[in-house]
Amino acid sequence: MSFLSFFLGTPKKSALLAKDRLKIILAQERSEGSIDYLPQLQKELIEVISKYIKVNPEDIKVNLERDGSLDILEVKIEMNQIK
Amino acid sequence: MSFLSFFLGTPKKSALLAKDRLKIILAQERSEGSIDYLPQLQKELIEVISKYIKVNPEDIKVNLERDGSLDILEVKIEMNQIK
Repeated sequence: MSFLSFFLGTPKKSALLAKDRLKIILAQERSEGSIDYLPQLQKELIEVISKYIKVNPEDIKVNLERDGSLDILEVKIEMNQIK
Repeated sequence: MSFLSFFLGTPKKSALLAKDRLKIILAQERSEGSIDYLPQLQKELIEVISKYIKVNPEDIKVNLERDGSLDILEVKIEMNQIK
């Protein structure tokens, strides 16, 4: 399994639908006292992406995990385009 | 080795410097005919991030790989803060 299919996940076989898929993983290691800007950054990332691709809110899956000073933000966007 | 240390890489042991580290991986699977917006998106991502953290251009490492319809953009930012 290549890093990409691990990263993007294997696409559902649907010949009819051509999918543009976008996955963003943002990992942050914060030192003591540094501000937590991830929630706000997440919002702006989606705004920037929406300038390039037509994104429906229900096509966006967001997952934010925190583990001590480490935060992982995962944004998955799947856009259906009928061939 | 946790996914995070794999993802962020193990920090250089330097007690003096507290580092904020940020790594963004953006993987895109494009269907035929869809526009290539990654280079422009990369520029805007760094602009958005610079609103939250003071980033020196030399602190930013960017790597863009293309493999058929798959593109991987990797942005690494390391910010030194003296304790």
